[in-house]
Amino acid sequence: MKIIIIGGTGTIGSAVAKELASRHTVIIAAYRQGDLHLDITDPTSITQMYKTVGKFDALIATTGNVHFGALTEMTAEDYQIGLHSKLMGQINLVLQGLASINDAGSFTLTSGILSCDPIRYGSSAAMVNGALDAFVKSAALEMPRAIRINVVSPSVLTEAMDKYADYFRGFESVPAARVALAYSKSVEGAQTGQIYCVK
Amino acid sequence: MKIIIIGGTGTIGSAVAKELASRHTVIIAAYRQGDLHLDITDPTSITQMYKTVGKFDALIATTGNVHFGALTEMTAEDYQIGLHSKLMGQINLVLQGLASINDAGSFTLTSGILSCDPIRYGSSAAMVNGALDAFVKSAALEMPRAIRINVVSPSVLTEAMDKYADYFRGFESVPAARVALAYSKSVEGAQTGQIYCVK
Repeated sequence: MKIIIIGGTGTIGSAVAKELASRHTVIIAAYRQGDLHLDITDPTSITQMYKTVGKFDALIATTGNVHFGALTEMTAEDYQIGLHSKLMGQINLVLQGLASINDAGSFTLTSGILSCDPIRYGSSAAMVNGALDAFVKSAALEMPRAIRINVVSPSVLTEAMDKYADYFRGFESVPAARVALAYSKSVEGAQTGQIYCVK
Repeated sequence: MKIIIIGGTGTIGSAVAKELASRHTVIIAAYRQGDLHLDITDPTSITQMYKTVGKFDALIATTGNVHFGALTEMTAEDYQIGLHSKLMGQINLVLQGLASINDAGSFTLTSGILSCDPIRYGSSAAMVNGALDAFVKSAALEMPRAIRINVVSPSVLTEAMDKYADYFRGFESVPAARVALAYSKSVEGAQTGQIYCVK
């Protein structure tokens, strides 16, 4: 399969690339490094990326920003960051990708545990993750040409615990290599409309 | 209690007003009719509404638009309608309302069944409802001064079935009067961070 990994240079993305590269042709797309550059918040950048890649079998998105902050200090603009980047960035990858994905191809997006298991400062992340999970469940019903769509919802990464441990006390972290298995299941399996919680 | 019902002239809103008016002071705010007019997509209109109302005990939001359409025809702009109106309209009511809500007051928002039980053409509704449910669960953790927040997630209304029956085949519809009980539970009860599914 020809698989595009958006954010493929990040902690999750590079673990996914490692998991899939021995069996498939993997194209790494990222903001700065990788085989191709793109900015998921810019729809024309997404269009250009798909034009360069041509036909493909799977799109994996492992990137997107959200703003973390105290609820009482959050502004509408702070929420807009997550809606614009992690949410609509990934949705636009799906909407535009439908034109050039092969029959029976798959989209795999990334949400996160905070919609199910919330923490302080995480109301924007929760909002965006909840939106992504529900979108995928619904969009799966209407995918044409046997195209599938799933979302991986990981807990906090073990690799990120040195930075984030204080915010995630009591959470069991998961190594990126374990999270990567869920993307493999999504791309190489047959399920659709699934939310793969890795915790 | 002094209770503001946004969208209080709509099918759900008027049923909620009927349920609560005998026991509380109810202020109906809506786009065209009601005691006060506001446009939830315009943050300055929300500011003006709160200025007029002064201190209050409960805010109930029962309004907001989303675009329904086939996934393969939906554009980023179509999704933006729901994100701007039903999602951020309600979130802005909460963010701004925190300044003038009384201690131990409550916010009650409205999502809907399509994030849990999706239908064709409903991917934007699913997205927005999922975002609202997760936001409320997370925001409840950080509400100051014993303020509470819940969301009501109703199935299709019996009153709307003449228009929408074809889209909701096999769904059990719920009368607005039954949905109104969930708002009563949210406002007059003690729970917070809850998603009240009425189906």
